[in-house]
Amino acid sequence: MKIAFIGLGNMGTPMARNLLRAGHELTVWNRTLAKAEALKSEGAKVAGSAGEAAKHAEVVITMLADDHAVESAVLDGGGVMESLPRGGTHISMSTISVALSRRLAEEHGKRGQHYITAPVFGRPEAAAAGKLFVAAAGEEAALERCMSILEAVGQRVFVIGDKPEMANVVKLSGNFLIAAVIESLGEAIALVRKYGIDPHEYVEFLTNSLFAAPVYKTYGGLIADAKPENAGFALRLGLKDIRLALAAADSVNAPLPVASLVHDHMLAGIGRGREKHDWSVLGKLAAEDAGL
Amino acid sequence: MKIAFIGLGNMGTPMARNLLRAGHELTVWNRTLAKAEALKSEGAKVAGSAGEAAKHAEVVITMLADDHAVESAVLDGGGVMESLPRGGTHISMSTISVALSRRLAEEHGKRGQHYITAPVFGRPEAAAAGKLFVAAAGEEAALERCMSILEAVGQRVFVIGDKPEMANVVKLSGNFLIAAVIESLGEAIALVRKYGIDPHEYVEFLTNSLFAAPVYKTYGGLIADAKPENAGFALRLGLKDIRLALAAADSVNAPLPVASLVHDHMLAGIGRGREKHDWSVLGKLAAEDAGL
Amino acid sequence: MKIAFIGLGNMGTPMARNLLRAGHELTVWNRTLAKAEALKSEGAKVAGSAGEAAKHAEVVITMLADDHAVESAVLDGGGVMESLPRGGTHISMSTISVALSRRLAEEHGKRGQHYITAPVFGRPEAAAAGKLFVAAAGEEAALERCMSILEAVGQRVFVIGDKPEMANVVKLSGNFLIAAVIESLGEAIALVRKYGIDPHEYVEFLTNSLFAAPVYKTYGGLIADAKPENAGFALRLGLKDIRLALAAADSVNAPLPVASLVHDHMLAGIGRGREKHDWSVLGKLAAEDAGL
Amino acid sequence: MKIAFIGLGNMGTPMARNLLRAGHELTVWNRTLAKAEALKSEGAKVAGSAGEAAKHAEVVITMLADDHAVESAVLDGGGVMESLPRGGTHISMSTISVALSRRLAEEHGKRGQHYITAPVFGRPEAAAAGKLFVAAAGEEAALERCMSILEAVGQRVFVIGDKPEMANVVKLSGNFLIAAVIESLGEAIALVRKYGIDPHEYVEFLTNSLFAAPVYKTYGGLIADAKPENAGFALRLGLKDIRLALAAADSVNAPLPVASLVHDHMLAGIGRGREKHDWSVLGKLAAEDAGL
Repeated sequence: MKIAFIGLGNMGTPMARNLLRAGHELTVWNRTLAKAEALKSEGAKVAGSAGEAAKHAEVVITMLADDHAVESAVLDGGGVMESLPRGGTHISMSTISVALSRRLAEEHGKRGQHYITAPVFGRPEAAAAGKLFVAAAGEEAALERCMSILEAVGQRVFVIGDKPEMANVVKLSGNFLIAAVIESLGEAIALVRKYGIDPHEYVEFLTNSLFAAPVYKTYGGLIADAKPENAGFALRLGLKDIRLALAAADSVNAPLPVASLVHDHMLAGIGRGREKHDWSVLGKLAAEDAGL
Repeated sequence: MKIAFIGLGNMGTPMARNLLRAGHELTVWNRTLAKAEALKSEGAKVAGSAGEAAKHAEVVITMLADDHAVESAVLDGGGVMESLPRGGTHISMSTISVALSRRLAEEHGKRGQHYITAPVFGRPEAAAAGKLFVAAAGEEAALERCMSILEAVGQRVFVIGDKPEMANVVKLSGNFLIAAVIESLGEAIALVRKYGIDPHEYVEFLTNSLFAAPVYKTYGGLIADAKPENAGFALRLGLKDIRLALAAADSVNAPLPVASLVHDHMLAGIGRGREKHDWSVLGKLAAEDAGL
Repeated sequence: MKIAFIGLGNMGTPMARNLLRAGHELTVWNRTLAKAEALKSEGAKVAGSAGEAAKHAEVVITMLADDHAVESAVLDGGGVMESLPRGGTHISMSTISVALSRRLAEEHGKRGQHYITAPVFGRPEAAAAGKLFVAAAGEEAALERCMSILEAVGQRVFVIGDKPEMANVVKLSGNFLIAAVIESLGEAIALVRKYGIDPHEYVEFLTNSLFAAPVYKTYGGLIADAKPENAGFALRLGLKDIRLALAAADSVNAPLPVASLVHDHMLAGIGRGREKHDWSVLGKLAAEDAGL
Repeated sequence: MKIAFIGLGNMGTPMARNLLRAGHELTVWNRTLAKAEALKSEGAKVAGSAGEAAKHAEVVITMLADDHAVESAVLDGGGVMESLPRGGTHISMSTISVALSRRLAEEHGKRGQHYITAPVFGRPEAAAAGKLFVAAAGEEAALERCMSILEAVGQRVFVIGDKPEMANVVKLSGNFLIAAVIESLGEAIALVRKYGIDPHEYVEFLTNSLFAAPVYKTYGGLIADAKPENAGFALRLGLKDIRLALAAADSVNAPLPVASLVHDHMLAGIGRGREKHDWSVLGKLAAEDAGL
């Protein structure tokens, strides 16, 4: 298929590379051009703008940092919305707000374009290995047509429902659940340390018994190491996602008390100078609050 | 070894059975005698009191419901403390408070008895299969002498440290982490349901991607099923454990904000008539608060 | 002065009446015309639109329900923004978001118009008696020119600072503090009731000792009466204001944990069917959660 | 009346002095003898122990720091419980736990002694001026006999109910409400400071409008001054009281979410080195969390 791939960050680049390997014809665009040029040798064409990339595409994939970047690439004059041909499909894989996703669904609908969402779970290493988990939503026919694309970037594709916003909600709720793990692990590790227990041995115990999940291994290790300066996913980005989860919940009158608590601790983390640290720094804040 | 086994509830009975199978000589005691009689045919002797059971034992294991039951069987006149021979060892496997564990350590020490702790993680089925996880703590020599006993009830024994209270803290913090999973899953499931997403499919997605841990499968399923009337572990018992975790944290000035929040929601659950429901009823409360 | 008064609700009508009494020349507008007509006999002119009311005014006062109503009356085509003469002043007395207030400041500035804010504290009875408290902000000269207007509606005017948004923040933080009083009083009253203490006598004690403030008297009485069906200020309006307070705080990275907690309890109140009850219904929810 | 007065701290000394002035015959006792000697010149007799002071008394008043001090003076061998004559009355004015108050009621009852509670609200200056507020509870006849005593120390006596524990609950809930004011004011002041608003002017506004209560004036001023090093009431004492309030609520299954939040912030304050600061330091923590 003729695909326009918009956004070549830590996640987008390996995803685009996997699509090239799967035999798709890619035109790529990135705000910082150098990242796009790097894919030329692997067969990608490079466009001068998001709109130009979309002009001759059957499918446009957006994998951008936030709502603002998506609005700019898609909704601004000369962007994807205006240039994608009638009948084309936009696969939104970015972590964006439910509100923006709704608006995109509406605008694409008006233009006879299709819109599906397919946010991904996993870190850059998983993206490189094609091992992401994909949560997809939208009208059935459009999802089916794009399935081979989604399967090329992920180890498994889960169809969440027929409204595009549904996958956005799943992505945001998933990030909330990760944040809840970080917060509660951080509190528990601070507690056991106060009793003289080694945090690494504690995490070893947890992740080899009831909590044998990747997310506990990753974040348990990061909190026990207590070196949040090396940000894999910066606190301010985690805060952005928690804000989106709270907004999605607020707009349907669903309280998320644990998310509220995490939100407030993240703000405190920023207030206490940890904006650029990994979001596992929540564990460090819990330790400080416990006098460690 | 000559073992006195005190407490034959849902967990204690299968654990005692596994010790008999492993070739240990067991004298058992239970407040409700019938449960003790049931083990006679498998080779156990039945004692008339906890103290009597301990009189000729090398090792006494307590697996009782709460602090009160342990105090009554161990500390009251004619109990384990008075009758266990000098040099004998008490393995406390119950989920008890750090304060009581400290007191037991002190009292046993005065009498030249040994005291180690070995609380277990897992449900009755895991106990029957000898698949519990055991977190053990206490002086090294005593732990070593008892290792074959601990291995007979669990699939893996983790040595946490040399102070008995350490394993109690690990147990309480572990139950806190389970409660945190229930609470945050309950909130997330309420949220996605508000967007029309099927809760079972959502749990299916989570537990086959980042949250592939037993605890998410068990509680995700229970919350999605929304039938908390069938209590595996009643809300009031969960509340008891969260109270012990908060007390353990409070006594070392470690804040546990997520545990405070869970504690308050559990109280609200009791206030709203769910005392005897499974503690996954937290998910039902979250749904009600979201207008579902 | 020639004043256009936009918004004649429970608060706006008595405020407009006080301005008429103080000798000002008023042109009024309200979405529901009947409320405007009622002021005719007291000397007000009635305009057909907000823009028309503002066309010949020196000062426009907006006293509307929310951001949406202000945007519609001021920013839409043919509205106040377009029709207020250069050099005219807009006094925004509504409880609106900091974000909208900033935008209004910017837009008025571009047009050579003045913009000050003057949100009020107090209930309709206080408005009728001219006993409101006014928190005003904006450039000094504009504030001075409008001081006689502000003094006509309030018993006291406090100048908060030179940026218009400052008074909006004060208003929102003030409503947050009231909500915090309701929530904590509700919890305390539920607690003492569990001990058999009469809630009215308890409130009597509090408000005649350390908590001798109007807000404790009003809300203590309402919670003790436990008849939140009679809404003075509906829960959904209280929620709106808490949302604005949280948004104002979030945008400057200031955590407000008590506001987060109140927000989540308000959502639970809506989920549990109390949307239209007085916001003192928070006390009823606290009672239910305590099993009362 | 013949009164034994036990406990001559910052509060007890001025209270005892007022009783002397009112013409009562006082025998005093204090752990640090010097403080007792100071009252000799004003007519008090000094006893060598709490028990000795109570031996010939009609009424014993305890005004001690905490549960431990009361247990030691009253329940230990040779203490007040053993030596107070049958028919004598113990007025417990200390801030103690509901659990201890119940135990005292029971023990005094067994001995044919009377037990009432009368905790006080106010700071040392108010005690000196006889301007405390007194919340009294217990059997009616005993309260009546002691009324002149209570009126000598307070500006007003409120009878809460006929069970002694009731006044303890009122005292603890009152301190919780004060802590809630400190916490929410601290958050609000941090917020307005982020918008460039002067905290003193803000407090001036609040306390001259809706929040014209002593508690807002006192704590608003302390937070705005931001000098919590000068402890009037140390954070660790505030924490003690919040712990007692939470325990009183927990034992009747009443959730106090705001108290939980305050408790966790107080622990964080201790973890961050502010144990000995005034409890208004909660406002400083809120400011730090907001990046101020």
